[in-house]
Amino acid sequence: MFRDQRLGEISEDILDYLSSRKADQRIFLADLLVDRAHLVMLKEMGQISEEVASKIIAALDEIEEGSALGAGEDVHEAIEAAVIALVGPEGGRMHTGRSRNDEVATCIRIALRDDLLDLMDGELSFIKTLVRLAANHRESVIPGFTHTQHAQPTTLAHHLLAHADAALRDLDRLKDAYRRVNKSPLGAAAFASTGFDIDRARTADLLGFDSLVENSMDAVSSRDFVLEVLAALSIAMVNCSRLAEELILWSSSEFGYLELDNLYATTSSIMPQKKNPDTAELARAKTGSVIGSLVAALSICKALPMSYNRDLQEVTPHLWRSLDWTLSTVRILDGCLSSSRFNLEHLKESSVLGFSTATELADSLVRITGMPFRTAHSIVGRIAAGKGEPTMRTLDEISLEIWGSPASERGFSNDHLLRALDPVSNVALRANAGGPAPEETARMIEERMRLIAEEEKNLAGMRSRVDGAIEVLRAIGRSDILRDLKGD
Amino acid sequence: MFRDQRLGEISEDILDYLSSRKADQRIFLADLLVDRAHLVMLKEMGQISEEVASKIIAALDEIEEGSALGAGEDVHEAIEAAVIALVGPEGGRMHTGRSRNDEVATCIRIALRDDLLDLMDGELSFIKTLVRLAANHRESVIPGFTHTQHAQPTTLAHHLLAHADAALRDLDRLKDAYRRVNKSPLGAAAFASTGFDIDRARTADLLGFDSLVENSMDAVSSRDFVLEVLAALSIAMVNCSRLAEELILWSSSEFGYLELDNLYATTSSIMPQKKNPDTAELARAKTGSVIGSLVAALSICKALPMSYNRDLQEVTPHLWRSLDWTLSTVRILDGCLSSSRFNLEHLKESSVLGFSTATELADSLVRITGMPFRTAHSIVGRIAAGKGEPTMRTLDEISLEIWGSPASERGFSNDHLLRALDPVSNVALRANAGGPAPEETARMIEERMRLIAEEEKNLAGMRSRVDGAIEVLRAIGRSDILRDLKGD
Amino acid sequence: MFRDQRLGEISEDILDYLSSRKADQRIFLADLLVDRAHLVMLKEMGQISEEVASKIIAALDEIEEGSALGAGEDVHEAIEAAVIALVGPEGGRMHTGRSRNDEVATCIRIALRDDLLDLMDGELSFIKTLVRLAANHRESVIPGFTHTQHAQPTTLAHHLLAHADAALRDLDRLKDAYRRVNKSPLGAAAFASTGFDIDRARTADLLGFDSLVENSMDAVSSRDFVLEVLAALSIAMVNCSRLAEELILWSSSEFGYLELDNLYATTSSIMPQKKNPDTAELARAKTGSVIGSLVAALSICKALPMSYNRDLQEVTPHLWRSLDWTLSTVRILDGCLSSSRFNLEHLKESSVLGFSTATELADSLVRITGMPFRTAHSIVGRIAAGKGEPTMRTLDEISLEIWGSPASERGFSNDHLLRALDPVSNVALRANAGGPAPEETARMIEERMRLIAEEEKNLAGMRSRVDGAIEVLRAIGRSDILRDLKGD
Amino acid sequence: MFRDQRLGEISEDILDYLSSRKADQRIFLADLLVDRAHLVMLKEMGQISEEVASKIIAALDEIEEGSALGAGEDVHEAIEAAVIALVGPEGGRMHTGRSRNDEVATCIRIALRDDLLDLMDGELSFIKTLVRLAANHRESVIPGFTHTQHAQPTTLAHHLLAHADAALRDLDRLKDAYRRVNKSPLGAAAFASTGFDIDRARTADLLGFDSLVENSMDAVSSRDFVLEVLAALSIAMVNCSRLAEELILWSSSEFGYLELDNLYATTSSIMPQKKNPDTAELARAKTGSVIGSLVAALSICKALPMSYNRDLQEVTPHLWRSLDWTLSTVRILDGCLSSSRFNLEHLKESSVLGFSTATELADSLVRITGMPFRTAHSIVGRIAAGKGEPTMRTLDEISLEIWGSPASERGFSNDHLLRALDPVSNVALRANAGGPAPEETARMIEERMRLIAEEEKNLAGMRSRVDGAIEVLRAIGRSDILRDLKGD
Repeated sequence: MFRDQRLGEISEDILDYLSSRKADQRIFLADLLVDRAHLVMLKEMGQISEEVASKIIAALDEIEEGSALGAGEDVHEAIEAAVIALVGPEGGRMHTGRSRNDEVATCIRIALRDDLLDLMDGELSFIKTLVRLAANHRESVIPGFTHTQHAQPTTLAHHLLAHADAALRDLDRLKDAYRRVNKSPLGAAAFASTGFDIDRARTADLLGFDSLVENSMDAVSSRDFVLEVLAALSIAMVNCSRLAEELILWSSSEFGYLELDNLYATTSSIMPQKKNPDTAELARAKTGSVIGSLVAALSICKALPMSYNRDLQEVTPHLWRSLDWTLSTVRILDGCLSSSRFNLEHLKESSVLGFSTATELADSLVRITGMPFRTAHSIVGRIAAGKGEPTMRTLDEISLEIWGSPASERGFSNDHLLRALDPVSNVALRANAGGPAPEETARMIEERMRLIAEEEKNLAGMRSRVDGAIEVLRAIGRSDILRDLKGD
Repeated sequence: MFRDQRLGEISEDILDYLSSRKADQRIFLADLLVDRAHLVMLKEMGQISEEVASKIIAALDEIEEGSALGAGEDVHEAIEAAVIALVGPEGGRMHTGRSRNDEVATCIRIALRDDLLDLMDGELSFIKTLVRLAANHRESVIPGFTHTQHAQPTTLAHHLLAHADAALRDLDRLKDAYRRVNKSPLGAAAFASTGFDIDRARTADLLGFDSLVENSMDAVSSRDFVLEVLAALSIAMVNCSRLAEELILWSSSEFGYLELDNLYATTSSIMPQKKNPDTAELARAKTGSVIGSLVAALSICKALPMSYNRDLQEVTPHLWRSLDWTLSTVRILDGCLSSSRFNLEHLKESSVLGFSTATELADSLVRITGMPFRTAHSIVGRIAAGKGEPTMRTLDEISLEIWGSPASERGFSNDHLLRALDPVSNVALRANAGGPAPEETARMIEERMRLIAEEEKNLAGMRSRVDGAIEVLRAIGRSDILRDLKGD
Repeated sequence: MFRDQRLGEISEDILDYLSSRKADQRIFLADLLVDRAHLVMLKEMGQISEEVASKIIAALDEIEEGSALGAGEDVHEAIEAAVIALVGPEGGRMHTGRSRNDEVATCIRIALRDDLLDLMDGELSFIKTLVRLAANHRESVIPGFTHTQHAQPTTLAHHLLAHADAALRDLDRLKDAYRRVNKSPLGAAAFASTGFDIDRARTADLLGFDSLVENSMDAVSSRDFVLEVLAALSIAMVNCSRLAEELILWSSSEFGYLELDNLYATTSSIMPQKKNPDTAELARAKTGSVIGSLVAALSICKALPMSYNRDLQEVTPHLWRSLDWTLSTVRILDGCLSSSRFNLEHLKESSVLGFSTATELADSLVRITGMPFRTAHSIVGRIAAGKGEPTMRTLDEISLEIWGSPASERGFSNDHLLRALDPVSNVALRANAGGPAPEETARMIEERMRLIAEEEKNLAGMRSRVDGAIEVLRAIGRSDILRDLKGD
Repeated sequence: MFRDQRLGEISEDILDYLSSRKADQRIFLADLLVDRAHLVMLKEMGQISEEVASKIIAALDEIEEGSALGAGEDVHEAIEAAVIALVGPEGGRMHTGRSRNDEVATCIRIALRDDLLDLMDGELSFIKTLVRLAANHRESVIPGFTHTQHAQPTTLAHHLLAHADAALRDLDRLKDAYRRVNKSPLGAAAFASTGFDIDRARTADLLGFDSLVENSMDAVSSRDFVLEVLAALSIAMVNCSRLAEELILWSSSEFGYLELDNLYATTSSIMPQKKNPDTAELARAKTGSVIGSLVAALSICKALPMSYNRDLQEVTPHLWRSLDWTLSTVRILDGCLSSSRFNLEHLKESSVLGFSTATELADSLVRITGMPFRTAHSIVGRIAAGKGEPTMRTLDEISLEIWGSPASERGFSNDHLLRALDPVSNVALRANAGGPAPEETARMIEERMRLIAEEEKNLAGMRSRVDGAIEVLRAIGRSDILRDLKGD
């Protein structure tokens, strides 16, 4: 073998390679909570004495407050080492009936659930911004695009509500993921459960979990909850990136549809006149980073046999990074959008560029004269090929030629023509469910505001259930209370 | 085709590049249903006459039966062209108040929802296989692994149930996705709704949708439902790939834990003695293909401004391919697993290899003698470093040295030792929630069988709601029934 | 098929799952060439008789011409079965000293190398289009962007040459990949070479390969050449997508910088006035599809132990699809760009919008008056904050205030001011290596045209080496020539 | 608008969102080099006085040594601010004729090139380990696998050389990438070059670059060199992951082919007897992380219009992370493999399991008796279906039945049979190019050792060219030397 001296020296490198300490910062507090809950349950089940439990909990208090953290490969070992240093060998009883495998899975779920609650709050605030902004712009006519080409006039409210509805689905997916996240793997031990008589339901309850990840092998070796969260983040970011793209385009000289607030723009070191949409560009870019995290996690988990494999350690940092990227992006877009100034006059003028009222003209012809849709389409197509504003005269000529009779003879008046060409009345006509007509957007806004209020209540409920449990757990942790529970 | 003279001729290469005909095969029948529902609604709303509606529906019947499909850039155009060819210019009225943008989004959702129902059926059947197999193997002791190393004995039932629970979550995610898929974008027109008086709720109902994708801009430009399905497929495939990996490893000479049925294995052109786990290898590989589809779709949708962009056309084929790959994989694994023969004797023998009962021995020492966990861990570690089966004598010697007194003096008998070392009693001890003890797996199996029955009922309900609606729609399509509805 | 009785019958579903027939279409002709080369070598090495070799080659001729292809799991088996059907059991000698594993690896490399040559041709033609177009637009002043904001004026030539240089690197990467692709794995057999005395260098030579993939285990189990090609395609597509994005933006009403030729645009079914950049949108989207293929392939190959695994079969279709997508995209962009009409007047007018000459004004102040760069930056920043065209008077006032003396007193004349503000002279000043000054772009164009000519010669050489070898191989294949070779 | 007080307070958040400070640590030293080179050139071109240049260089010395770094959005601004703080307003002249855009692109290439040189060193050391290990194991017979099933015997040398050849291609790709990385974008300014008379070739030379990224727009807006490096890293990691997978499998109880050194294994907190292959598991997992980085970068760069966009800032951290992951993985695998103990006896015994000599037996029958390959295949297949070691008697019986005459009558002796069945002589027979026969692996090892020596020389040359340039640059940086250059 070629193992030379060099290899003896690189053990530091190997330790670095194996270490999860950096990502473990994220679960340090969660780990202390898990220790507390496990201790309370062990004591209740008679696995450890009240005295030992109290001592260890006091040690955990000290560790949480201070810098009493010893060395160790990961945070779990570091805490256990610190406990033993403070309490003596009896501190080792804390690890009775569990393993690092169930411990780390539990910690990730606890820390993740808090991040998800924050992110759902952020999404909801962002949605509120979109809907409120829409409420101010029900009558603000803007160009509507397909293929980045002017298609038909619509309103800013209609456009913003499209983003709001997409964000509501993003929120929905996060809620679905949360349901699968907030379950306790604790007590699964290494993967095969434990011969100690423990009460998994009790620790789940103490830690604010909704239920168990029951099968103990599944509990320690599954990370599909991480994959699902990363997928939900990726999709939410893709939706964010679409708005970011619009902020970039709309704030360009060519579009000139909005001006970003200085807070959300930067200038150039060499071009003093510029105002660059850097925040929106980074929002767009971070979408790629989150997609990358998802791919990393999927690719790592693929084809791993049961049960726990060290590969899983490599998954978690991708989760934390993507949660941070997504939350900060949602907040940035929220602020960036709400502080932007829309050039409403210019938007309205642009809304008729490119003969974008053509569809409505064709539709009006069908509705009023009864001609088939494709015939109307041909007539309007011919008009579109010409230059200048269409007049009744041109319309009648072309109609005669293609359809055999002038439109005006079938009841199509100049008034009909003007209404079709005017973006405001054009938009007002589109009052079907989901359309841009101001009364319809008003209805949608009202409904969404009601939905937002409901979701805020739901979220607050979810958070208070979790926070309440943790508060109780911390209270039990205090030795006097632990003693009071002795009678149970 | 709707290319008019204005745009001139188009070359064959460019047409190929633009064409979605191949992927459109998948939505051909859905498109005919959409046409029917739209026609019924138009007739009901007085937008077209009963006569024209009847004629067009008859034409659709003919197109569905035969090969009466004309040319066109995509399936929507092809069907419309065929209708006009059969009915005359009045056939063009079918397109009143809609656009290809809402049409294609509706078709994708219809075809996708059927595929999802099939896939959920497939998953459920696969889960049933896992649970039934588990029911047969509650007492089959096998080695349990961490890091692909023997860790502790468990049972085949426990192992299979871990896969079943993961698959149940996969099913859950598909159900969540289905809720967001089965909504109707129809009537959103190009993106800005339409000035025609249409009834979106009616077409949604006729087509078996649960509700609307309300905002018309959102309706045509969102594909997050596709991204979500692809994410759910990717995660399900990652779970499948873990089982596939185990089938590959366990059927190797080295493991020898199971033998694949000949149906699911192949032989070599040059090595006649081999029996290769090709189906499992392909299942593992197709996981990568599905992940690739997800990445493609996310990357395509990133940073697209509102509303419809042609990029979206490129998303759909990834969806169809991945649905096929996932469904066939689930079915293959179902068959492959259920036809495999487990070498139970060898599994049981292997379950104690590598002193995999060490954990239980340490735990027993803690439970019976009350020594701290870390002390027991040290004692057993010393035993593990030695050779041969541990005896009471060795145990007492080491216990004396490390702990200060022989284990036997604190109540640890030879019986305790033998029970800890015997894999069967070892497993029986692990009866906490989710553990491998036969009575606990029995409980889990029973509960999951009940859950499966419930899910089967749910699924049947979902399917019959959709199928029922479509049946009614087809019935309305027959001209006489359409006439009967005239009075409504 | 080589499934013998031992393994029993296989169901249709499973056969479908295992089958590579669809992707094998792509290597059908390559497989026949491999058969020919192998036969010639076997005959030369005395492993089979001339008579048998001739008969088999005649059978291969027949198979190539007609529809004489029998059934089989894959193309290799199908061809062998057809040969045996035509020649009798002696046809089985064709498979002497080889395996499907080396055969398929060889076929993929042969088919891929042809595709790479086509793609390199396509890239080169595209680069030529870019450079020729640049040659016409050395004096066409356009706005230059950073952050999608106007930054400084440049020329269309400069902009197009940036794309050309990126495409030249894409070509370079394809050439590097080609070197690693055009190597022969043939003769590696299943992975462990063969006991038959064969001549791998001879078959490599007959098939136009540059050398061997020597180690026989590496030869059949490595697909990093596929990964590398997919990576090169992905990067090339990312570069393509950047141009596609510009075609989309520049052809919007807001930009109005160019008009696409009708051939490369489409219209809407509902909006007759529109001219949509669908080809560019699909080019942008297909970039995502190619990235997806790369991810699929990487993810499939990850963590596969040696040597051949069936997973590798799943890699190849991703390769073929992405090659097609990339080649068609390069061709479409080539045609789309070369047929576009640039609105040069509008581009020139836009080039000074947003005070994009500010940088040059600041630089001029530094050069002429010697003031520090940051001081000039401050002065110009102040001017940028004001309204209207800057005059000497304003400049002097601000200069006095910030710098302590008016710019005009340090030699900065009105002429200097006008030159800095005029986009044409502004651009002309930037004559450093790589800059937009017309004389510098002229130099770059000339150099690139020379490089293109060289590359065309290289490519032609590569192709003729391959084609020449194949031509000789086909000639040898004719039985009379084979006989003539007997004396060798 | 909804900009409330909250938004005023989050400006810290926005700064965080925009900041690249963390990733900029990586380019801090590179940035100082770029400053030096730019200053030397500016002085030589007469753009700044010797005095100012000397002062600024002294300030850079101070910044490099100490903690004299001021605040700023990124490292470039921070350094410039520090220089101005030390030197006064004249320090601002350092930024003459350049921009952050070309500066950051240059810094990335400088830092990256060093990392690539380190990585190529690491790869080369790893390849040397593989080849040296192979040299010790030319006669070590091991089972060869396809489909994770025993296929044919081979040698450990042959197996290790397959990995070595793959790694050599990885090295090759890194070298190709290096050629495209080591080019200077400096002097491109914001993207449109500069009106100052600068000498880009001179700064390129001072910084040890091989040539220019010529077109100034391309120079600042292209990151395909990053994509290419990430692709090369991903492919190299996929190759690494294959070896990692084998280390994991081979060190399992079931395989028992090797034992990892304790340095590269860890034990369990709960299972004292275990020795887990954690380093190999993490190597396997980090492959997924690197693939994720590639996807992130591709997805970020897709569809960005020219020229610089802030999105590019988000690309770089993915590069640094993946370089670290790859280098540490290559080193870990190098050490892990070279310190592993192979169980040669067990490997040899296993090499004949599963009748893995069947192919050779069939081939021998063909070679000696002249029967067609498929006939021999059938005979051996029949033997494989039986139990026990094949004898001449069985062989003759089956041969008679299938082929019409006993093999022994056509010259096939018991000696032939034994040689075919013996793994050592079996391997020795496979002496074609690339085969496992000891003499052929000896030839391959010798050739690769020569190649490694060459590559080491190449690499040393590349490094000394770069280091030499930097050394000269630092020397010029000292004010006295700068003065001496005045005469130039």
